[in-house]
Amino acid sequence: MNIMILGSDGYLGWPMTMRLANLNHNVLAVDNYYRRLIAKETDSEALIEGPNLKRRQKLFENKFSNSFEIKIGDCTDYYFMSNMIKKFMPDVVIHFAEQPSAPYSMIDYFSAKKTFDNNLNSTFSLIWAILENKPDCHIIKLGTMGEYGTPNIDIEEGWLDINHKGRSQKFLYPRQASSLYHTTKVLDTDLLWFYVRAYGLKVTDLMQGPVYGLFTDESRVNDEFLPNFHYDDIFGTLVNRLITQAVAGIPLTVYGEGGQTRGYINLSDTLKCIELSILNPPKASELKIMNQFTEQFTVNEIAEKVKLVSEKKGRKCEIKKIKNPRKEMENHYYNAIHSNFSQLGLKPNLMTEDILSEIFDKVMERKELINSEIALPRVRWNK
Amino acid sequence: MNIMILGSDGYLGWPMTMRLANLNHNVLAVDNYYRRLIAKETDSEALIEGPNLKRRQKLFENKFSNSFEIKIGDCTDYYFMSNMIKKFMPDVVIHFAEQPSAPYSMIDYFSAKKTFDNNLNSTFSLIWAILENKPDCHIIKLGTMGEYGTPNIDIEEGWLDINHKGRSQKFLYPRQASSLYHTTKVLDTDLLWFYVRAYGLKVTDLMQGPVYGLFTDESRVNDEFLPNFHYDDIFGTLVNRLITQAVAGIPLTVYGEGGQTRGYINLSDTLKCIELSILNPPKASELKIMNQFTEQFTVNEIAEKVKLVSEKKGRKCEIKKIKNPRKEMENHYYNAIHSNFSQLGLKPNLMTEDILSEIFDKVMERKELINSEIALPRVRWNK
Repeated sequence: MNIMILGSDGYLGWPMTMRLANLNHNVLAVDNYYRRLIAKETDSEALIEGPNLKRRQKLFENKFSNSFEIKIGDCTDYYFMSNMIKKFMPDVVIHFAEQPSAPYSMIDYFSAKKTFDNNLNSTFSLIWAILENKPDCHIIKLGTMGEYGTPNIDIEEGWLDINHKGRSQKFLYPRQASSLYHTTKVLDTDLLWFYVRAYGLKVTDLMQGPVYGLFTDESRVNDEFLPNFHYDDIFGTLVNRLITQAVAGIPLTVYGEGGQTRGYINLSDTLKCIELSILNPPKASELKIMNQFTEQFTVNEIAEKVKLVSEKKGRKCEIKKIKNPRKEMENHYYNAIHSNFSQLGLKPNLMTEDILSEIFDKVMERKELINSEIALPRVRWNK
Repeated sequence: MNIMILGSDGYLGWPMTMRLANLNHNVLAVDNYYRRLIAKETDSEALIEGPNLKRRQKLFENKFSNSFEIKIGDCTDYYFMSNMIKKFMPDVVIHFAEQPSAPYSMIDYFSAKKTFDNNLNSTFSLIWAILENKPDCHIIKLGTMGEYGTPNIDIEEGWLDINHKGRSQKFLYPRQASSLYHTTKVLDTDLLWFYVRAYGLKVTDLMQGPVYGLFTDESRVNDEFLPNFHYDDIFGTLVNRLITQAVAGIPLTVYGEGGQTRGYINLSDTLKCIELSILNPPKASELKIMNQFTEQFTVNEIAEKVKLVSEKKGRKCEIKKIKNPRKEMENHYYNAIHSNFSQLGLKPNLMTEDILSEIFDKVMERKELINSEIALPRVRWNK
């Protein structure tokens, strides 16, 4: 199949590019290195950051007997997107081309506006470029479990049947996110759902939980194939941040009470979920929504897991609760359904000691490069 | 109070400007004539269109012993908005500054993108200009009943208590609109609700049904004070279009089966609702939502009303069902609650024969200027 990956330089985009190329698809890898730019602007550079796509393409061709094409450009630009789609005629577009950091979106007007413009306009350009040039293309869009927030009822997979005063209606599950970044994903979903109904697009919207891990079949072959690894408060996700703090020998910082519960997923399972999505496309005028995570943890539980791994390696480890820079519930009900991918055959790789240990060891190799200051909160939600 | 009206040149903005000036508020009228421009671009000029704001300001000052200030500029521009708010320090901002046509938003990529950019960016600029300069200002935002679509359950006022598997949660009422224009209003609501929760803004979001009418205490004083009157398929709303067809002696065109039900409101009641909103502001961190209409009708019922008025004036009138250019349900359940404004004291002006007759007569004065071709559908929802 012809598969376009928007955001191929990213944490998910790069391993996905290698995987789909190795599955013998014609892959077009698209990025403009925007995440790298804003990471630099905010002094949040990754601890692990591969060479540019052109360079990795060469390394990949040398190592595997496959390749992929590259196009460098801005997905918010409709002309760029439209010309690219007209030429490549994708069967599938995987849309990862969004500013991925919640704290970044909460710094000030400028970061909020950049997040808003980048995320909404990339989706808008994609929708119209597909409508105008390849309307039967399957769009796979990366959403987030964060769209749902933390409601007091079970989180279903995308939709909710509501009974009210003796009548019933199926709706998009009501969404209520806790950062502007997560809110842009809510808006993406609204927008995609409208254009699916209006013009018959085929869309899979993946509500993904926080992803962790560095290793896939391809990335473990060569360090230059590893995806980026951010550990700072802005671009680093929880697992990365805690592991890096453990490696650096500084306290693992838990925001607030630490009862914040989320659904987590291993990087290798994310790739599998997207492979399964490609194999199970929606029909025309259908929006398929799947909750893409495999197990739920509180922040405290993850901190304890990292501490255990660290101490087994003989590195003492302290957990420290600090004032929560975010506005979020710290003790709450959380029960999110995630049976769609199991039904399609996903066999999860869970957050075991071994898996955390392997990440720990890779971070340990780069211990001297860690700037532990940037793992502490630099962005606060209150104004 | 210091009250800023964004979109003061519009159908609602202009009568609102006169009313609030006559209530002795300090009014700043803001517009950039964008609606006039795109109406011209699409050959959809209004049958009644007042002089520019500067000219009307002079006429208004001569007629009434009050005045208002004017600022011409683009509300999507954060610097324009921010500087204006810093200087004027509004107690209330009434946000009408959005592209108001559903068909316009469905023409092509360019009209969709302009609608998306104009509507979302004006809201985004306003939110941030208020946050940075006057965070306790009351934002009154014009939404639309169209945000809710036509669900099979009762439409509550903004919120819905959901019971699910033995637990309960209050959510924003799930929204599902039927044009990109209406979808931008859904996105506005999502965005405002996020920033209300994150930063404590005070927002009233008005879910308004289609408005009809030309006459308010101020507008009836002088023809040059009348609000704009569009009768074409793009900017004209149903009542205007049907009355104009009756005046022109051509068939009243009903889209499809004509069972489409909506909640309608008289222009003079819209002004009253906004006066009531000003007097009953939300608290900090509160999003107040009110359904702003007074009675429900099907398209067929309105066509019959217009026909009756026309025939009583001795003008024969035929109703003709035509292929629906839109994608919408033509026979559906519709029961929308609208008790908030009644509880605040609204005494509705209903869609009586007298009220329709008065509009009819005013249109009749301009009979020779009607271009009846543009009252037929020029924009179709399917691609």
